[in-house]
Amino acid sequence: MAIRKVFSLAVGILVLCLFLCASSSKLKSNKKWHFPRDTRKAFSGYNYKTYYFKQQVDHFGFANVDTFPQRYLLADQYWNHNGGPIFFYTGNEGDISWFCNNTGFMWDIAAEFKALLVFAEHRYYGESIPYGPDAFMNPKNLNYLTSEQALADFADLINYLKSTIPGAAQSPVVAFGGSYGGMLAAWFRMKYPSIVVGALAGSAPILQFSGITGCEAFNEVVTRAFERESVECVNNIRASWQLINSYGITDVGRKLLQEVFHLCQPLNASSEVDTFKDWLAGTWTSLAMVNYPYPANFLEPLPAWPVRECCKYLSNPAESQGLLLDLFAAISVYYNYTGQATCLDISQQGTSSLGDMGWDYQSCTEMVMPMCSNGVSDMFEPMEWNFTQYSDNCYKKWQIKPLLDWITTEYGGKSLESASNIIFSNGLLDPWSSGGVLQSQSRNVIAIRIPDGAHHLDLRSANDQDPYDLQSARVQEVNILKNWLNQV
Amino acid sequence: MAIRKVFSLAVGILVLCLFLCASSSKLKSNKKWHFPRDTRKAFSGYNYKTYYFKQQVDHFGFANVDTFPQRYLLADQYWNHNGGPIFFYTGNEGDISWFCNNTGFMWDIAAEFKALLVFAEHRYYGESIPYGPDAFMNPKNLNYLTSEQALADFADLINYLKSTIPGAAQSPVVAFGGSYGGMLAAWFRMKYPSIVVGALAGSAPILQFSGITGCEAFNEVVTRAFERESVECVNNIRASWQLINSYGITDVGRKLLQEVFHLCQPLNASSEVDTFKDWLAGTWTSLAMVNYPYPANFLEPLPAWPVRECCKYLSNPAESQGLLLDLFAAISVYYNYTGQATCLDISQQGTSSLGDMGWDYQSCTEMVMPMCSNGVSDMFEPMEWNFTQYSDNCYKKWQIKPLLDWITTEYGGKSLESASNIIFSNGLLDPWSSGGVLQSQSRNVIAIRIPDGAHHLDLRSANDQDPYDLQSARVQEVNILKNWLNQV
Repeated sequence: MAIRKVFSLAVGILVLCLFLCASSSKLKSNKKWHFPRDTRKAFSGYNYKTYYFKQQVDHFGFANVDTFPQRYLLADQYWNHNGGPIFFYTGNEGDISWFCNNTGFMWDIAAEFKALLVFAEHRYYGESIPYGPDAFMNPKNLNYLTSEQALADFADLINYLKSTIPGAAQSPVVAFGGSYGGMLAAWFRMKYPSIVVGALAGSAPILQFSGITGCEAFNEVVTRAFERESVECVNNIRASWQLINSYGITDVGRKLLQEVFHLCQPLNASSEVDTFKDWLAGTWTSLAMVNYPYPANFLEPLPAWPVRECCKYLSNPAESQGLLLDLFAAISVYYNYTGQATCLDISQQGTSSLGDMGWDYQSCTEMVMPMCSNGVSDMFEPMEWNFTQYSDNCYKKWQIKPLLDWITTEYGGKSLESASNIIFSNGLLDPWSSGGVLQSQSRNVIAIRIPDGAHHLDLRSANDQDPYDLQSARVQEVNILKNWLNQV
Repeated sequence: MAIRKVFSLAVGILVLCLFLCASSSKLKSNKKWHFPRDTRKAFSGYNYKTYYFKQQVDHFGFANVDTFPQRYLLADQYWNHNGGPIFFYTGNEGDISWFCNNTGFMWDIAAEFKALLVFAEHRYYGESIPYGPDAFMNPKNLNYLTSEQALADFADLINYLKSTIPGAAQSPVVAFGGSYGGMLAAWFRMKYPSIVVGALAGSAPILQFSGITGCEAFNEVVTRAFERESVECVNNIRASWQLINSYGITDVGRKLLQEVFHLCQPLNASSEVDTFKDWLAGTWTSLAMVNYPYPANFLEPLPAWPVRECCKYLSNPAESQGLLLDLFAAISVYYNYTGQATCLDISQQGTSSLGDMGWDYQSCTEMVMPMCSNGVSDMFEPMEWNFTQYSDNCYKKWQIKPLLDWITTEYGGKSLESASNIIFSNGLLDPWSSGGVLQSQSRNVIAIRIPDGAHHLDLRSANDQDPYDLQSARVQEVNILKNWLNQV
């Protein structure tokens, strides 16, 4: 089980650089776990078989012939074994079984399409770790953790499946993915169009990069998700930072913060107060991401519309200790919906199924997503985007330096004129929609907006509480998939 | 200056695997040079400036931060400095100044388009050698010699040029390339469509790979180029192998071969007779490649229609020493058109501007182009395609093993449905047209066939002797380029 650190926290699916940058040198690691967080254990799961493919560590050079076992999950109970389509989930930064069990849409439509379902784990996550326990020990072992290598893994794996599974040789393949997995699905179609006929990219912030999307955009969407419930809720959160700062400067104040928020550990110094604020900010962000219309257990077990539930505690003017108590009640919606928590641990923020260290490395190499806040158009404490500081922190942690612009060079940024057969779906409540493709680019590159949707809600299984716009989006997605498959 | 070896000979532009495989362990190197072969020195050249860009050695990992100076040539005398287009030559396996001076078409049309001309050298060739003199010493230093890294070089270089040359920021870029450079131009457009609006890929055998084009195809086109001149010419060449074998088994016979062919070195063993045959076969192939309609000096100084000139010596039935003398007269068209040769050196075959070692490595890694001959549908000695043997030879030379199918996975093989804005031009006399895209794939991926053209004839400068179909092809190319640029 990965050691969780706030300074490498993956907020929701994609790491929130804002908090990453702010607190990179502040926290010690903490191995304590207070709640059962592994949804695999809580959820009986779908019926699939687990396999391992002998995958090349390096696809772009010939000197290193090392391999690693890449895990993939396969479900053929719905498949037309004579050339039926393959629905291929391009795994993202975590345990593939978790994504498998949280991508119910693929399971829901598999029978209709007579599709073979494949969920491929991303290298350096879950069980698919090149160099095993030594993977994160040095830059050399981590050198192969890039999106390009991951896409090449998927390509090789698909070729292998098509050449070894009887009846699959002519099967058209559709890529599916959510969040970073959605970015990979879209990029996979762009870079390997001979391998996949199309891609459904759910909540894929491929525009959340330097020079394309402003650093303030993400936090503004978080704020809007709270503002939608109550302006006072936003005002209270915005006011909280200064209040916490005022308590944080004294031993007595920090002790009070610990007690009010039932923190498992004391806040021993003002630097730990910064960590506490990062954790709070990350919590608001996570809440916005998983603001689903029904009770769900993605990052945490939560009620329906959890932002609304939180804001119920923050919708009256408050100050001083009264506001602190309201804040605690609000975050308890996220951390203690089950009522089993005895204390709150600011060194962790959600499911253990995500590979925080891997994503931290990726965000320190290719995946630099500039984030900032100003406390005016958003509800967060003002924080500038400082790439130099960001880069220095990365170097301290990983002995590598990030490249700010490479990702746009490699995948084209917002230039999507030459792309085809991609659906970019985005829930507009989702903070990551700030970097999503929200406008259709052509008749083949289609944006689907889900006004009442949070993070890749459309990829979750159907639910009685699904809003109409979500149901409509799924119908549209199915029709587009059929269209692609009919053209093959 | 590179040491030339038959076992790593780049025949024309792209190495001829057939001969590569056949003779990999047979020859010693030979440093002797008998003719002035460097066209840079013979040709006054076009007017350009030379620059060097600090290029990353590894684009697909972050552990190695080494750089190397990538050479590029720049000519701005025709350019509209306010956003005029950039014509970018994606350099192939050799000295970029040689390609620059042999791609007159770009110079011919630069003024009409008010274009900036850029010729970018391919890594590990010419002066653009990562790790300098140690580059070819071990697999580690050579690890970054791949087409993917080369394309990323081009992308980074273009970004750099657009961000540093005043007036270039909005300039649309068109990729040009011939032979392997044409493959790169086409793949560059496929993989980096946000960087280049289109690609003119001259004589680019992107289909000359396993599972797409039969191994016999190449040699059949060579044979047809000779058959076009005289069936007897083909029959004589086809008969020559057995004749040479019969002489090659004895000391006396080998001595006679050396004397008849004016070889610089004796043929000491039957293995050297194999090398001699490889050299002969490579010569016929080179002749077919540069079978231009006017005197030219690409691989060698040659008369117009050199295959016709050769076949003049081979158009009568002959046998025994008479045939040997005819063969010598025929190859002297290639090796001694200037009449200055005192002997023929079977360890070399053409210009020194090509980087034989680099291409040999590439053909032992990604660029595996299966070749074979049967002596029936072609005029060569029968030789099977044996990948195991090929791979073993590669391992002996470079301590790496080739991947037969990776190139097709990476670039999609013949699946061009998703490509756009590519011209594939092919001269049908050119052996490499066997692996060329000869049929238009869509209204955006256009094949131009030049019946009387040899290897990327259309990329050469205009000449009074240009056949009508070539002139017509160039007009079509210019119109398509204008169309792409008008759409930007």
